[in-house]
Order: sequence, then C-alpha cells, then structure tokens
Amino acid sequence: METIITLTTDFGIEDAYVAAMKGVIIGINPRAIIVDISHSIDPQDVTQGAFVLSTAYPYFPDGTIHIVVVDPGVGSQRRSIILKTKRAVFVAPDNGVLSYVAHHASLKGCRGSTALEEWPAGLEVFEITNPGFWRHPVSSTFHGLDIFAPIAAYISTGVPFEEFGKVTDSINLFPIPQPEALESGDLIGHVLHIDHFGNIITDVQREDISPEKFYLEVAGRQIESLSQTYDEANGLLALVGSSGYLEIALKNSSAARFLGTRIGDEVRIRRGL
Amino acid sequence: METIITLTTDFGIEDAYVAAMKGVIIGINPRAIIVDISHSIDPQDVTQGAFVLSTAYPYFPDGTIHIVVVDPGVGSQRRSIILKTKRAVFVAPDNGVLSYVAHHASLKGCRGSTALEEWPAGLEVFEITNPGFWRHPVSSTFHGLDIFAPIAAYISTGVPFEEFGKVTDSINLFPIPQPEALESGDLIGHVLHIDHFGNIITDVQREDISPEKFYLEVAGRQIESLSQTYDEANGLLALVGSSGYLEIALKNSSAARFLGTRIGDEVRIRRGL
Amino acid sequence: METIITLTTDFGIEDAYVAAMKGVIIGINPRAIIVDISHSIDPQDVTQGAFVLSTAYPYFPDGTIHIVVVDPGVGSQRRSIILKTKRAVFVAPDNGVLSYVAHHASLKGCRGSTALEEWPAGLEVFEITNPGFWRHPVSSTFHGLDIFAPIAAYISTGVPFEEFGKVTDSINLFPIPQPEALESGDLIGHVLHIDHFGNIITDVQREDISPEKFYLEVAGRQIESLSQTYDEANGLLALVGSSGYLEIALKNSSAARFLGTRIGDEVRIRRGL
Repeated sequence: METIITLTTDFGIEDAYVAAMKGVIIGINPRAIIVDISHSIDPQDVTQGAFVLSTAYPYFPDGTIHIVVVDPGVGSQRRSIILKTKRAVFVAPDNGVLSYVAHHASLKGCRGSTALEEWPAGLEVFEITNPGFWRHPVSSTFHGLDIFAPIAAYISTGVPFEEFGKVTDSINLFPIPQPEALESGDLIGHVLHIDHFGNIITDVQREDISPEKFYLEVAGRQIESLSQTYDEANGLLALVGSSGYLEIALKNSSAARFLGTRIGDEVRIRRGL
Repeated sequence: METIITLTTDFGIEDAYVAAMKGVIIGINPRAIIVDISHSIDPQDVTQGAFVLSTAYPYFPDGTIHIVVVDPGVGSQRRSIILKTKRAVFVAPDNGVLSYVAHHASLKGCRGSTALEEWPAGLEVFEITNPGFWRHPVSSTFHGLDIFAPIAAYISTGVPFEEFGKVTDSINLFPIPQPEALESGDLIGHVLHIDHFGNIITDVQREDISPEKFYLEVAGRQIESLSQTYDEANGLLALVGSSGYLEIALKNSSAARFLGTRIGDEVRIRRGL
Repeated sequence: METIITLTTDFGIEDAYVAAMKGVIIGINPRAIIVDISHSIDPQDVTQGAFVLSTAYPYFPDGTIHIVVVDPGVGSQRRSIILKTKRAVFVAPDNGVLSYVAHHASLKGCRGSTALEEWPAGLEVFEITNPGFWRHPVSSTFHGLDIFAPIAAYISTGVPFEEFGKVTDSINLFPIPQPEALESGDLIGHVLHIDHFGNIITDVQREDISPEKFYLEVAGRQIESLSQTYDEANGLLALVGSSGYLEIALKNSSAARFLGTRIGDEVRIRRGL
C-alpha cells in the first residue's frame, strides 16, 4: 500500500544510519512513500525532537506513520510504543518524544508512566513486545533499524496493531511548556525552539495575545506591536508563525544571534497596561 | 499522475518546514515524485536561489514542476507567479528568483516589472490570485506551505493553469551577471557561486574563452592554461564545468578558501596578449 | 521497474549536483526509487566513502543498484565500473571506493589492478566503455551526471550489463584496515570512522574480543568492560555497534571530541592479561 512513513531522528545526515532504516522499510514495503522530517535534532534531545515532530505531522494526510528515533535510552528498560491517534500513527521509544502529539490529542492529564484515568476516544497505545516483526539479531544500540523501521513498514502493509504487542494504558510524557500568567495580568512565555533563520519560537500562542494591545519584552528589549510579516518592520519584530506560536524575528537576519537567546529563555507579554 | 515536483528553498534541513510542504503535496497528489534540489540557499538570498535552481532544472524531464521558495517578502505586496516554459513549470514568488530560468528561455529583454514587448513563444506567466486552491487560513509567513505547495500539487494533478489566476505580461527579473569586455579585449568575469568543494564558479562561459590561448588572473594569481579535469594540474587550475561556466579549482582542496574568494569578486581573462 | 537506486557522494547538499543526477535518473526510469545514503563524505575521501557505503548497502533489498561518486580522478584515465554481486549492483569509478563491498563478497585476494586468480562465484565486474548509454557531450568533470546516473537508470530498466561494456577480471581495491595481533596476544585496532554522535568506530570486530575479559586502551585511557548500550555506563564506554564493529562512546556526548580522536588512530585491546 502507498502509505507514507516519515522519519524524525537525531542521526544527522553524514552517516548511513538513516539510509539503513530506509533500506529496511523498502525491503518490507517497496511502495511506502518515505519522507524525512528532520535528522538534525540535537543528539539525545528528546524535547527538541518532540517539538519538531509536532510542527510537521499535522500537514500529512490521515493514516501517515511517523517514526521518531531520538533515543538516548536505546537498549535499556525503556519501552517501545505505537501511539495511534485519529489521524496518524507514531512509532517511537516511550521517552516523552510524543509529548506534543499526545498533548494535541488531548492527552493532557497523563504525566509520567501512571495509568490514565481519562483516555481520549480514538487513541490507543501499544507496547511493542512481539519480536516476530523485528530484525534479528536485534542490536542493543539501534532499535530504529531493528524494531521501529520494520514495525512501521509492517503497519504500512496492513498488519493489525495487536500483532506487535498489547494495548497499554500508560505513556511517558513530559509537561508541555506553557506560558505563565502573573497576577499583574502579564504573561511569561518560554523559548521553545530557534529555527534555521534564527527566528525565536515561544510557547505563547495566538489566543494568548491581543493584536491591538501588544507589548513584549525580550532580553532587555521591547517590541511594541505585532507584525503580520517578516518584511514589515525593520529591526526586531514579533508575529504569529504558521504553527500558531508567537515568534520573534529580525528582518533578513537572525534574532536569536542578535539577542543571544537560548531555548528556555523567558519573554514577557505585558497585558496589564 | 506521476509528475515530478522539485523544491528549492532557504529553509535549511533542521526544521520541519520542508517536510510540512511535502505533507501538503502528498496529501493532494500521493503519486507526485518529490525531489529536493537544495534547502541550503543562504537565508533570503534570492540571487543564489536563482543560480542554484538554474544548474538543476535542465536535467529534469519535460513537465517537471519546480517550487522555489526564497521569499524574504512573504506576506507583503509581492506577487506569486507560475512561469510556464516549453519544458517546465515554476511556482515561486515574483522576486527575481526565476531570473536565470527566464534568461535561458530568452526572456532577456524584461527587467523590472514592466510589460514585455517581445514575449518568447511557449512562455506564459500566471499571477496566482485564486484562493480556492490555497490552504486556509493562509499564513502571512509561510506561503510555501499554504500557496506554493498546494498549487504545484494541483498542477501535477492536471488542473489547468487558468484556474489559479490570470495571465500576466510582466515578471520581476534581475540582470543576469555577464562578463564585461574591455577595450583591450580582456574580459572581466564575476564569481557567481562557490560550491561545496570550494570550486569558484564564474559568469564566464565556454564560448567566451579560447582553450588554446588562455590566461586568467584571480586574486593576484595567474592560471596560464585551461584544464580538462580536476585531477590534471597540481595547485590552482581553471576548467569549464558541467554547466558550461568557467571554474577555478584547487586539486583536492578548496580554491575559494585558498584565495579568500567571495561571490561577486572579479576575475580577468587576458585575451589581448 | 520499481528498482531502488541509492546515491553515495561527496557532493554535499548545498549545490544542485545531487538533484541533477536524480533528474537524469528519473528521466530514464520514472519508477526508480531513489534513496540517499550520504552526500557528506569528505571531499575526495574515497576511503570514507567506501566505509559509509559498506554500512548501508547490506540493509537494502536484493537487486538494489548503488551509485557511488567519490571521484577525485574524474576525467582522467581511471576506469568506470559496474560490480555485480549476488545481492546488489554497484556503479562507481574504479578507484577503490568498492573495497569494503568487494571484501564482504570475499574478493579478499585482489589488490591493485592485477587480474584475480580466484574470482568468487556470482561476482562480475564490467568496465563501462559503451558511450551509447551516456549523456552527451560527456563532461570531463561530472561523470556522476553523464555516466553513472544514466547507467544505473538503464540497469534499473533491465538493460543487460553486457551492453555497457565488457567483463573485466581486475578491480582496484585498497587493503581493508584490519586489527593487528601482537605476539603478546594484544590487538592493535584502528579508528575507521567517527560518526555524527562522535562515536569512535574501530576495525575491531565482534569476533575479535571476549566480552567476559575485556580491556581497552585509547588515548591514554582505559575501558575495562564491554557495555551493551550507550546508556549503560557514565563516562567512556565500549560496545559492539549495529554493524559489528567495536565502538567507543561517551554517554550523551562525543567520545571523539573528548578524546581528540582522529581516523587512523590506534586502540589497544589487551588480551594477554
């Protein structure tokens, strides 16, 4: 079947790791359409992997299978899971890399590996336990190759999820960064990501701000209006990017380099004026 | 239909921007064959994007659709266009990024957005105005995702060009760098591009030089013969590369780093000797 | 036919070189499935290209066609060849870049371009001499585009190998690095590759070491046990990676940067204890 399989990893593009996974996938399903999301996640940075995945998967057709391999605990006791939502399927280590996806799917209540009390409809998690679909001998260092790639490929050929392992009612999720509302009415946001252009992407969302009355502080500087485009203002500007997050940009340059911004840094939205 | 769609952008490969565009394309036409040309165009460098595109598109089959997104003016008043030549289709902002393509198609006379007096046969430009084929809500920051990707995908499914907007008789083009002939007969060429190997690619073309009587000056150094291969000479050498441009190379090393060369630098071909 | 064609080059991803090759391939066989192995081989580094290829091709289905273009001698007298093994087809310059592949296929005896006395069954080498399948005019600088890409594409459409040139009984191979056994019983291994994570991959293989009695020296430091996973130990650790080679890693960091290791450096396995 012509199912789409995407890959998000921290493998880089110099080595043959990604290609080896693709070889395994095509060997099982030559008609799979393989799409790279990113292989430039910082090594072992589960949080960044979770975020980058979250900005890509919504644009893929229903039924797309997403493999995510940012997996510092490979070979340890961490579980491997399949998360099935109404729209997509995710194959990944159970280390939090699906936290944004789960959050989008209203899996807000579950933190840590405790059982969920309220499990949203249409959502299922399977623990991958049946070695019948793995490559053997299974390495203890590259489950992307030996477990995730073949599982995703077999899912794309129509093998039922139950074949890979049994349903579980827990999943490891980390808390999604959220802006913090102060008593004054101000909002403290956090830098989630710095993109290729040096645009600073924060956890402040469209619904958190008022375009008419906008005042932002970042790294000791003020931005006093909300722009629509990167081209609109000279110097620093703020706008809501295509994924709905408030971004800080610098026309034709890198705002992050200019401001010395790093992931986790705070921005303040003045709303109590 | 199994049409080819290529992508040339300045998005880099770290983020999910390219993948999101691919998701949109495949969602509309799962049989599109998507090929990356480059995503490493320097941010906002329309000239470089235009050049790199120009060295790739001639090798693709007739009917290939090329999406080009180097788009510093996204969301502003700049137009979005479809350029249809005898051989290919280009979907891009109207900011000059198609200048080399237009030049190749003999669109030499048109500079700026003035109407063309002589429009080569087989060439048409459409202004993209019909929002019926866009993703909604259209962001003001990522037309690659919301406009260019879906338009290219719909073209690949056979939607007639007229559906996307009306024919226009203007297009924004920048002057293609050309070597300058001096009264002495010498030629002043310009560095167009520095490639991954550090080869220095100039705007001097095969027909501008005489292999038998060749003498080049670059950065205070002389090259006194024209080579056929990178392997031929030790030290600096000059040859005509596969795209027909005169290149300066350094055997097993980077000529650009060795000479400190930058884009726009001059080289001199002595022809008056 | 839906044959897989892979690409391993030192072209980088900034320029249009790789895309141009893909355009040529798709123009000949629109149903070819093209997979990038790596384009980040260090410029002209035939040894690295040979190694990276060797860690990817075993994961591809039988019949896959691998194009390898790390080709500092392009346009010179070096030959172009097709190596056909029982499992795969390789199209490459005859400069040693297929040395690991040949080694895997038991072509151990052949060094240099001397004729082979014992040629393993199922293995054939063709010298590419018939220009009928090349792009014309053939450049002297980019045989990837003009020769290797079209040859691979025509192979994928079923053209018999004999059409491209005649069988030859010689192939250029370099000696595969092998660990050296000392009289003391110790083993001197060599660093073959440093991967994206900074893991140090050596030529010591699983069968060369004893997991129960393991003692390794590298850059003046000792590792006294063999780990199973990257997660197992804090600090430096040694394990056998997915390709069967002994690796030295540093948990959540780069062992190569920490130790200042370079390709070719020695490690010592103490076995005479």
